[in-house]
Amino acid sequence: MTSGTVHIVGVGPGDPELLTLKAARVIGQSGVVAYFCRHDRMGHARRIADAHISEGTEELRFAYPFTIERAVSDPSYHDGMGTFYDECADKIAAVTAAGRDVALLCEGDPFLYGSAMYLFDRLRETVECRIVPGITGMGGCWSEAAVPMTHGDDVLCVLPATMPEDELASWLIKTDAAVVMKLGRNLPKLRSALERAGRSAEAVYVERGTQQDSRVTRLEDMDGPAPYFSLALLPGRRGVR
Amino acid sequence: MTSGTVHIVGVGPGDPELLTLKAARVIGQSGVVAYFCRHDRMGHARRIADAHISEGTEELRFAYPFTIERAVSDPSYHDGMGTFYDECADKIAAVTAAGRDVALLCEGDPFLYGSAMYLFDRLRETVECRIVPGITGMGGCWSEAAVPMTHGDDVLCVLPATMPEDELASWLIKTDAAVVMKLGRNLPKLRSALERAGRSAEAVYVERGTQQDSRVTRLEDMDGPAPYFSLALLPGRRGVR
Repeated sequence: MTSGTVHIVGVGPGDPELLTLKAARVIGQSGVVAYFCRHDRMGHARRIADAHISEGTEELRFAYPFTIERAVSDPSYHDGMGTFYDECADKIAAVTAAGRDVALLCEGDPFLYGSAMYLFDRLRETVECRIVPGITGMGGCWSEAAVPMTHGDDVLCVLPATMPEDELASWLIKTDAAVVMKLGRNLPKLRSALERAGRSAEAVYVERGTQQDSRVTRLEDMDGPAPYFSLALLPGRRGVR
Repeated sequence: MTSGTVHIVGVGPGDPELLTLKAARVIGQSGVVAYFCRHDRMGHARRIADAHISEGTEELRFAYPFTIERAVSDPSYHDGMGTFYDECADKIAAVTAAGRDVALLCEGDPFLYGSAMYLFDRLRETVECRIVPGITGMGGCWSEAAVPMTHGDDVLCVLPATMPEDELASWLIKTDAAVVMKLGRNLPKLRSALERAGRSAEAVYVERGTQQDSRVTRLEDMDGPAPYFSLALLPGRRGVR
């Protein structure tokens, strides 16, 4: 018997029409789909892919043991997540050993800040893995906001706002274009870092990009708290006009 | 009469199956498609989108006045390209003024190093523009090469290899993950910058990613010249395992 393949499939940032033709085909042809979700939710990736899952497809639902209830700085977070990823990888390996293909659904692009990479790291030596790229969250956001990001020889930096303010300011001074992610409670820090870099007026804020309740505004015009899944865009410094 | 809309449509990095469902629909519904190309070629974006262009669709073919024949450092390059983009924008504006929709086809993602941005800059004030994101060239490459790029709070930098070696080395020291583009004649400089950053062994070389004649290898194992459209991937430094 031939072993099955794991297709690690990006389903894009939220709009179901932003799946690729390849993702739609691979999902429809796989006998099993797997996806991460919160224990109390359907799962964002599962919902985006819904129209392409054939009747009778088996589903492996990987509910995170915790999401925001435990801090990433807590050592038990890493142990707990490591064990969880081990178990998920074992379940996928059992299915492929039985000769069946699995589509592992991932929001955005699988290899850019995706949980699927932790399963890939565990499976790659023993199971055939193929990656189907997806539209990234940031790509969905800059398209919806109509913010051209990089021209000519611009440098683009993707920066998690979780880093210390000094570091963030230093990146923002150095780079041409930037995407700053994971705003949430880091928003006041980002505002201060942008001020120090002299770039406050350039920043565009996008919340839930490509989803139905999305919001786009200049960061300076935005009040109130930001959800964790929001980002700020700083377009590059332009070359040829 | 209502004016038409310009849909600026990313068609992905090369594999026609990496178009999004939305791109396929918008291309099929637009009465006019426009695309850049070399004067002696069909155009890469046009070829990728081929299966979705309906019969009877009008085509606006924008042949670059020069590509590699004139250096970017030559002042006449910028004047010549500026005039060319003005003319392309005027042609699109004439079509939309007549009430027709245009799909402007772009390789990769339109707002990441895309020529379409120069037309968007010229049209945005007067014509309705909507952006359809595409799979980026780099996303196609790291998926094909199966290189997971960023975990946890990694920083990702997208770096054109055209910059001076000192600068390139400094970015490679500072960042977690990197995509280095526009290798071509800059390859020896990149090798030297990687050496100075102590990261030579990490770099993966990808040529013509997602196309039929693609090539993936460790950069250290790669001999010979690199084409301009090749890139090097440096995966991030990993968080949770």
